[in-house]
Amino acid sequence: MADLLPEIDVVADDPFNSDPNDPEMMSDAVRDRKNNGETLPIAKAKVIMVDLPLGATEDRVCGTIDIEKALSEGVKAFEPGLLAKANRGILYVDEVNLLDDHLVDVLLDSAASGWNTVEREGISIRHPARFVLVGSGNPEEGELRPQLLDRFGMSVEVRTVKDPEQRVEVVEQRSAFDANPQEFMVKCQAEQDALQARLVAAQQLLPSVALDYDTRVQISQVCSELDIDGLRGDLVANRAAKALAAYDGRTEVSVEDLAQVIGLCLRHRLRKDPLETVDSGLKVQKTFCRVFGLPEPESEKAMAIANGRR
Amino acid sequence: MADLLPEIDVVADDPFNSDPNDPEMMSDAVRDRKNNGETLPIAKAKVIMVDLPLGATEDRVCGTIDIEKALSEGVKAFEPGLLAKANRGILYVDEVNLLDDHLVDVLLDSAASGWNTVEREGISIRHPARFVLVGSGNPEEGELRPQLLDRFGMSVEVRTVKDPEQRVEVVEQRSAFDANPQEFMVKCQAEQDALQARLVAAQQLLPSVALDYDTRVQISQVCSELDIDGLRGDLVANRAAKALAAYDGRTEVSVEDLAQVIGLCLRHRLRKDPLETVDSGLKVQKTFCRVFGLPEPESEKAMAIANGRR
Amino acid sequence: MADLLPEIDVVADDPFNSDPNDPEMMSDAVRDRKNNGETLPIAKAKVIMVDLPLGATEDRVCGTIDIEKALSEGVKAFEPGLLAKANRGILYVDEVNLLDDHLVDVLLDSAASGWNTVEREGISIRHPARFVLVGSGNPEEGELRPQLLDRFGMSVEVRTVKDPEQRVEVVEQRSAFDANPQEFMVKCQAEQDALQARLVAAQQLLPSVALDYDTRVQISQVCSELDIDGLRGDLVANRAAKALAAYDGRTEVSVEDLAQVIGLCLRHRLRKDPLETVDSGLKVQKTFCRVFGLPEPESEKAMAIANGRR
Amino acid sequence: MADLLPEIDVVADDPFNSDPNDPEMMSDAVRDRKNNGETLPIAKAKVIMVDLPLGATEDRVCGTIDIEKALSEGVKAFEPGLLAKANRGILYVDEVNLLDDHLVDVLLDSAASGWNTVEREGISIRHPARFVLVGSGNPEEGELRPQLLDRFGMSVEVRTVKDPEQRVEVVEQRSAFDANPQEFMVKCQAEQDALQARLVAAQQLLPSVALDYDTRVQISQVCSELDIDGLRGDLVANRAAKALAAYDGRTEVSVEDLAQVIGLCLRHRLRKDPLETVDSGLKVQKTFCRVFGLPEPESEKAMAIANGRR
Amino acid sequence: MADLLPEIDVVADDPFNSDPNDPEMMSDAVRDRKNNGETLPIAKAKVIMVDLPLGATEDRVCGTIDIEKALSEGVKAFEPGLLAKANRGILYVDEVNLLDDHLVDVLLDSAASGWNTVEREGISIRHPARFVLVGSGNPEEGELRPQLLDRFGMSVEVRTVKDPEQRVEVVEQRSAFDANPQEFMVKCQAEQDALQARLVAAQQLLPSVALDYDTRVQISQVCSELDIDGLRGDLVANRAAKALAAYDGRTEVSVEDLAQVIGLCLRHRLRKDPLETVDSGLKVQKTFCRVFGLPEPESEKAMAIANGRR
Amino acid sequence: MADLLPEIDVVADDPFNSDPNDPEMMSDAVRDRKNNGETLPIAKAKVIMVDLPLGATEDRVCGTIDIEKALSEGVKAFEPGLLAKANRGILYVDEVNLLDDHLVDVLLDSAASGWNTVEREGISIRHPARFVLVGSGNPEEGELRPQLLDRFGMSVEVRTVKDPEQRVEVVEQRSAFDANPQEFMVKCQAEQDALQARLVAAQQLLPSVALDYDTRVQISQVCSELDIDGLRGDLVANRAAKALAAYDGRTEVSVEDLAQVIGLCLRHRLRKDPLETVDSGLKVQKTFCRVFGLPEPESEKAMAIANGRR
Repeated sequence: MADLLPEIDVVADDPFNSDPNDPEMMSDAVRDRKNNGETLPIAKAKVIMVDLPLGATEDRVCGTIDIEKALSEGVKAFEPGLLAKANRGILYVDEVNLLDDHLVDVLLDSAASGWNTVEREGISIRHPARFVLVGSGNPEEGELRPQLLDRFGMSVEVRTVKDPEQRVEVVEQRSAFDANPQEFMVKCQAEQDALQARLVAAQQLLPSVALDYDTRVQISQVCSELDIDGLRGDLVANRAAKALAAYDGRTEVSVEDLAQVIGLCLRHRLRKDPLETVDSGLKVQKTFCRVFGLPEPESEKAMAIANGRR
Repeated sequence: MADLLPEIDVVADDPFNSDPNDPEMMSDAVRDRKNNGETLPIAKAKVIMVDLPLGATEDRVCGTIDIEKALSEGVKAFEPGLLAKANRGILYVDEVNLLDDHLVDVLLDSAASGWNTVEREGISIRHPARFVLVGSGNPEEGELRPQLLDRFGMSVEVRTVKDPEQRVEVVEQRSAFDANPQEFMVKCQAEQDALQARLVAAQQLLPSVALDYDTRVQISQVCSELDIDGLRGDLVANRAAKALAAYDGRTEVSVEDLAQVIGLCLRHRLRKDPLETVDSGLKVQKTFCRVFGLPEPESEKAMAIANGRR
Repeated sequence: MADLLPEIDVVADDPFNSDPNDPEMMSDAVRDRKNNGETLPIAKAKVIMVDLPLGATEDRVCGTIDIEKALSEGVKAFEPGLLAKANRGILYVDEVNLLDDHLVDVLLDSAASGWNTVEREGISIRHPARFVLVGSGNPEEGELRPQLLDRFGMSVEVRTVKDPEQRVEVVEQRSAFDANPQEFMVKCQAEQDALQARLVAAQQLLPSVALDYDTRVQISQVCSELDIDGLRGDLVANRAAKALAAYDGRTEVSVEDLAQVIGLCLRHRLRKDPLETVDSGLKVQKTFCRVFGLPEPESEKAMAIANGRR
Repeated sequence: MADLLPEIDVVADDPFNSDPNDPEMMSDAVRDRKNNGETLPIAKAKVIMVDLPLGATEDRVCGTIDIEKALSEGVKAFEPGLLAKANRGILYVDEVNLLDDHLVDVLLDSAASGWNTVEREGISIRHPARFVLVGSGNPEEGELRPQLLDRFGMSVEVRTVKDPEQRVEVVEQRSAFDANPQEFMVKCQAEQDALQARLVAAQQLLPSVALDYDTRVQISQVCSELDIDGLRGDLVANRAAKALAAYDGRTEVSVEDLAQVIGLCLRHRLRKDPLETVDSGLKVQKTFCRVFGLPEPESEKAMAIANGRR
Repeated sequence: MADLLPEIDVVADDPFNSDPNDPEMMSDAVRDRKNNGETLPIAKAKVIMVDLPLGATEDRVCGTIDIEKALSEGVKAFEPGLLAKANRGILYVDEVNLLDDHLVDVLLDSAASGWNTVEREGISIRHPARFVLVGSGNPEEGELRPQLLDRFGMSVEVRTVKDPEQRVEVVEQRSAFDANPQEFMVKCQAEQDALQARLVAAQQLLPSVALDYDTRVQISQVCSELDIDGLRGDLVANRAAKALAAYDGRTEVSVEDLAQVIGLCLRHRLRKDPLETVDSGLKVQKTFCRVFGLPEPESEKAMAIANGRR
Repeated sequence: MADLLPEIDVVADDPFNSDPNDPEMMSDAVRDRKNNGETLPIAKAKVIMVDLPLGATEDRVCGTIDIEKALSEGVKAFEPGLLAKANRGILYVDEVNLLDDHLVDVLLDSAASGWNTVEREGISIRHPARFVLVGSGNPEEGELRPQLLDRFGMSVEVRTVKDPEQRVEVVEQRSAFDANPQEFMVKCQAEQDALQARLVAAQQLLPSVALDYDTRVQISQVCSELDIDGLRGDLVANRAAKALAAYDGRTEVSVEDLAQVIGLCLRHRLRKDPLETVDSGLKVQKTFCRVFGLPEPESEKAMAIANGRR
C-alpha cells in the first residue's frame, strides 16, 4: 500500500521524519537547529508503513532512554521506537482487536496528542507521532475497545470471495508470486505506476473539491438520525467524499460519491443493539437514502455498496 | 480553557509555582528562603492546564527522587512530576473513569491534603499540590469511584448536538482549524479577550457578592431533602451561585442563578437508586422548585436547565 | 483532635518518642543508654496525630533499613516510618475499610504486640509502636476485616445532619475557615483551651473513679446476652464509663454514664445477622435496659443515645 | 505457656538450639564440631515460644543466605530465621487459618522432614526444625487446609465464657495486669511454679505409664468407626491419654483419661459432612462410649467433656 | 521424520542455516559478507527438527542479546535461540494446544513475516526464521487459538488402534527398541533409505506435476461451499494433491489424489457449529464428492479416507 | 524403599550418577572424558531416592548456572539440582496433585526426553535425568493433570486399614520407631536383607521371563475394550506381569500374575465418566476376566485384587 504514495520531504538525518517546513511536525532537536538558523538538509523519502506486532514491548513501540548514557555523557540518549518510525507514515496493526490493553493506551495517547512522550527516572523526551492508523482483525475473536474504534476514520468488512473462479485466480497469483516474487513484481509495476500517478493528481486536486452547504447539512442529518456520538463521523464523511471526487478527477462531490463512502465512515460508529437484526451497513445506507430522497435500495445491492464495491 | 484565566504571581525560579505571598502555597525550599529573609523573585505566569494521561506512571505523576544524587551530593534531588506542575493550576484527566486505581489513590491523597508527598528509601519530599481537577469520560464505560466522584464540585452531562445545521457549523470550525490553525486562532482572539476581561472583573467582584441567610437555608434544605451525604454539595452550590452572579456583574444572587447551578452541583451526589426512573438532574430541579416555592418545571425544559443551558 | 491533649514527656532526641520513665515504652537504643547509666534528655511534646494514607507503601509505614549503610558502617541504619512517629500518639486512617490487606496485617501485628519489627536480609530492628488507632470510612464501600474491627474499642456512626439551619451553620464555619484560616483558629482558641483543661482534670481524676462489682457483673451480662465474642467489649465498656464519669468530674460511674457509652462500645461487636431487622445500636440499648431494670426506650430516642448524643 | 516448661540443654553458642547429645537434633556445624572431637559447650535454655506473624516473609521464617558474603569470604553466611529459633521449642501462629499458602507450604515441608532447607543460587543450608506447632484462629473466617489441619495433634474449641461473674473476674485480672504488669506477675509466680513442678514430675513419670493392649484396640476401633484417615489419630490419642495419666501422677491410663482426650484428638479429623447436624465433638464422644461400653452421655455434658473441661 | 529428508546446502559457519544462494534466506551477516564479495563456505546439513518444549522461555525460543558484551565490545552479541536453529527446518511443538499465549504470539509473528526480531534496550537483531511447523496435542485438553490453527496447512486426527494384534505389534517394536536401540535402528535402515530415495525423486518431479484449470475451480468450489475463510485452504489442497501425485511418480493429479488430501487440508478450517452432528472430515468428503460428481461415500469408509488412510 | 535396591555402578566423581558403560546415561563432561580415552573411576552407589518438596523453586529442581563464574572463569559453572541428583534413581513427590504447574511442566519435559536442560542468558547445560517417578497424594484435594497422570506406569489406591488390631500393630511399630529409631532399624534388617536378595534375583531372572503371543494379544484386547488412549497401558502391563513372575522366581507369566497387576496398570488410564457408578478398578477386572475367559469375580473380592492385595 505504501508503494502507491508519492515521496515526501523529510529532514535528511532525523529519525523522526521531521517535516523541514512545518514546525509542528518537527522533533525538538530539529526545531532547535532551525531556530538556530541552521539550514536543514532535505531528503525525499517514501511514506513508510510500520508493522506493530502484537507481541511488541512498550519499549519497542515508544522507544527507550539510555539512562546510563544520559547520565555519563550528559546527553539525552533516546533510542527511537516504532512510533518515531511511523511519524508521517502509516502504522499497521494486524489483529488489532487482540492488541494488549497497555499498547492500546499508548496508541490512544499518541493519537490524541500527536506526540509520543517517553519518561524514565525524571528524564523526559517527546517527539511528533502523527500517523495514519490502519488495523485489521477478525471481529469474532474479540471486539475493539470503544475509544480505539472511534479513532478509526473508516472501516471495511472484508469477506472471502465465494466465486470458485475468482478464488482460483487469487490462488494463481499467489502461486506465481511464491514461485518467482521478482518476476511477479515487475509485471505489476505498470499498473502500480498508473495508480500512483492518479493518486498524486487527486492529492493536488483535493483542495479545489467543493461540497455544498445543503449536502453537508444532509450528511450531518444522517449522522444525527443514526444517533452517532461525537462529530468525527460527520468530519470523516465530508473528507472521504471529497477524496473520492478528487480520485475521479472531479471538483464537485456527487451524491454517488457519498453513497459510496457513507457506510464505510459510519457503520462502525453505530451503537450495538443486541436486538437489532438489520446489518449496520444496511441501516446506514437506508438512512442515507431517506435523507437524500433516494429510493431505498434492495438489501442485497445496498450491502454491496455499503461495503464499498462499485 | 486555561487561556481565559488571568496570569498569577509565582516565584520566578520555582518548579512548584509557589505563591510569593501565601506561605501555605509555598514549597519548603521557597519558604526556607523567605524565612531566611531572601527577597523572592516574582514572575507572572499563565494558569497552567496539565494533562494527566491514562498511561502515566506514578513516578511521572508524583515526581521522583534521585537517590544516588541525594546520597552522593547530600542534596534532596527531586525531579518534579505532573502534580508539581499542576499546583495552582488545572489538572485535566480525560477518560477519568478509566483511571488506574493507584493513580486515583494518589489524586485522593493530594486532593485531601493539598500536598504531594514522595518517599523513597527513607528520604521524604513534599510540595503543595492544589489544583482544580477537571475530568471527562463516558459513563457507559465505567463509573467513577465514589470517593473521587465526591471530589468533583460540579458535573455537566455533555451530549452530541442533534441539529444537523449546528453539526455542520462545528465541523466547519474544526475544518477551518485543521486547514490553518494559526489563522483560526487569530480570528478567535477578540472573543477570547472579551471573555477573559469579563472573568477578571467577576473575580474582583466575587468577594462583594451576597447570599442571604434564608436562601442559604433553602439550599441546605434542598440538599437535605435529596439526602445528599456530607456538606460539600451545600458549599459548592453557595459558591457557584455567587460566581454566576459575579459573572453577570451583579452583587446579589438571584433565584435564577441558583436554578442555573443547583443541578450541576448536586446531580452527581444523589445516591443511585436502581428502581428510580426519574433522571437525577430532573429530580434535583423538582426539589429545588418545591423548596423555593416555584412552579414545578415541565420535564423537557427542566432537563435543559439542569444541564446548564441558559 | 490532637490539639486537645496535654503534652507528654519524651526522650528529647529519640525518633520513637520513648517514654523517659517506662522501659516498656523505650526503643532499644534508649533503653541501652539508660542501662548504661546515661541521664536521658527529656522534652515536652504534643501528642502527635499521624495520618496513614491509603496509598502508603509498607516501607513508609514500617520504616526501612539502609542495608548498604548498615554493612559499610556497621551500624543499624534504620529510617523510622509512620508507626515510629505514631508511637504514644494517634494513628488516623481515613477510609480504613479500603486499606490494603497488607497494611492491615501490619497494623494487626503492631496492635497485637505493641512493637513494630522490620527485617531485611537478616538485619532486624524493632521499636515500640503503641498508638490509639482512629479510623473513619463509609461502610457502604466495603466492610472492615473482622480482626481489625475487633481492635477498635468504640465506634460511632456519623450521619450528615438533616436540619437545614444546622447545615448552613457548618457551611458558614467552613467558609469562614477557608476565607481566613488563622483568624478562625484564634476565635476557637478559648473554647479549645477550656476543653483541654477539662480533659487534663479528667485524666488526673480517672484513677479515683470507682465502678462497683454489681454494675460490672451487669455489664458483662449485657455482653454475654448479646453473644459478644471475647471480653474486649466488657473491658472497653468499663473503661469508657469511668472516663465519662471523670470527664464530668465525678468519681462514681452512674447508670447514665453506661447508657451513654454502652452502644458505642458494643454495637460493632455484634454478629451480623442478615435476617435481623433491628438496628444493632438499638439492640444493645434494649438489652442494656433490660439487664439494668430500666424501662425500654422508644426506638427514636434510643437511637439517639446509642449514637452518643447527649 | 513456655514459662511452664523446664529448661533444656542446648549447645551454648548455636543459633539452632542444637541438642548436645542427640546427633539428629544438631545443626551440621555442631555435628561437624562433635565429629572433630570438640567438647561442645552446654547451656541451659528455656523452651522458646516463637510467634510467626501473618505478614512474615519467607526470608524471615526460613532465614536467608548472604550470597555476597558467601562468595567473597568463602563461608556459608546463613542468617537464621524463625524456624531456626523455634527448633526444639514451640511455634505459635495466631490466625493460622489466614496464613499465606506459601508459608503453609514451608510449615508442611518442615513438619514432614524435621529440617528446614534454604537454597539460594546454588548454595544450600539445612538445619533441624522440630517444633511443637500451636495455632489459633476463628474458623468462621476461613478453614485450614486439610494437610495442615492433619498436622495438629489435638484441637480445642474455645468459646467466650457466658457467665457474667466469670467475665468480670477475667476483666479484673486483665485490668490488674494492665495497671501493673510486674506486680501481677509476682502474684502468679507461686501458682506457676507449682504447675511447672507437676509438669516436670509428669515428664519423668511418662515412660512408666502403661496402656493395655485391649484399650489400644478399642481406641483404634473408635478411630476406625469414625472413618478417620491415617493413623495419626490413634497415635495421638494413645500419647495424650498417657500424658494425662502422668500429669495425675498415675502409671495406668484410665477410661476417664481417654474420655477426656479422645474428643480433642479426633474431632478435627472427622470428614466434614454438610448434611450432618450432630456436632463432631459429640459424635466422637458417642462412638467412644459405644465402643467402651459406657452409657451414652447426654448431649450437654458430652459437649463439655468433648471440649476438655473436667 | 527429519531423517527422511535429503540434505540441504547451508553456509558452513552460520548459526541460522543461511541458504548460500537465496538472499531472502540469509542472515544479515551472511548477506553482508556476500555483498562484500566474499565466497561463502558451503556445507551439507540435514534438515533439522527442533523441539519446542512447553516450558521454554521466550529467551530460549527467540535468542538473547548480551547487552554488556554489545556495549563493551561494540559488536552485536546475539546468542541464537530455537527459532534460529529451526530456520529452513522443522519446528515441532508437542501439546501445541497448551502452548503459552506469549509463545504463540512469537510463533505467529515469525510465521507471518518469516523473520525473528529480537530487541533489547534499543539494540535490534533479526534473522530469517522459516520453518515447517508441526504440532501435536490432545484436543480434549484445550483448543488451538484460531490464528495458530489457521497456520497449519494440514491436520490429521490420530486415534489409538483398536485391533489387539496391531497393538501387540507396536508394543513389540517399542520393546525391541527399548531393549537395544542401535540394533533396531540398523534393521529399519533399508526401509528408511528406500523412503528417502522416493521422497528425493518426488521433490524433483514436483515442478512437472500439472493440475488442470477445471479441477482447480472445483477445488475452490469445495472450499467456497464449505464456507472456508481465506484462500489458504485452496492453496494447500492444490499443493498437497500435486505432492501426492509426485510421490506416486505421476505428473498428473488424479481425482483420487484429491480425495486423499482434501480432508486433511480442509477439515480443521471448518467453522465449529455446536449443533452439527456430522463429523467435519465426513462433511468435507461429502462436499468433495458432490462437486466432483462422485457417488457419496458411505460414512465409515469416507471417514477412513478423510483421515488419510489409503 | 530405596534401601531394598542393589547398588549400581556410577562414575565416581560425577554429580549426575553417570553410568560408566552406557554413553546415553552419561553427562556431557563424562562422555567427553571417555571419548578422550580417560579411564573413568567407578564407584558403587545406592539407588538414591530424592524428595521433591512442594515449595521447591525451579532453580532447586533443575539446578542453576552461575553466570558470573561462567563469564569470569570461562567455564560452565553449573550447580546441579534435584533432577541431577535423581538421575538413575527415584524421584518422590508427596502431594503430587498439588504440585505447581510450572514444576509439572519441568517434570514432563524431563520425563519425555530423559534430559534436563537449563538455559540462562545464552549459556545452555544439559544432563541426563532419567528417574522412576513416584508420587502420592489425596485425590480429593485435586486431580493430576492428564499428561502427568499418563506418565505414571502403575497406580495404587491406599486406604487406611479399618481393622482395629491392625491399626494397633502399625501404631506400635511407629511408637517403637519413635522411641528408639536405631534399635528398630536393626530389628528390621534381616527382613530387609532377604527382600533385597529376592529383588536382585528377580532382576537377574527378568530377561528370561516369557510372555506368549496369545496372552499379549489378550492384554491389548483388554486395553482396547477399555478404550485406553495410547499404548503405554499395554507396555506397562506386559512389563509388570513379567516382573511379578520374576519376583516369584518363575520364567513363565501366569494369568494370576496378570490378574494381580492389570488393575494397577490400567485403572488410572480409564476415561472419567461422570455417570459411571462402577469403580474403575472393578471395571478393569471385569473386562480382564471376560477377555481371559475367567468367571467374573464378585465385586468385593475383585476390588481387593484390583488394589493389589494378594
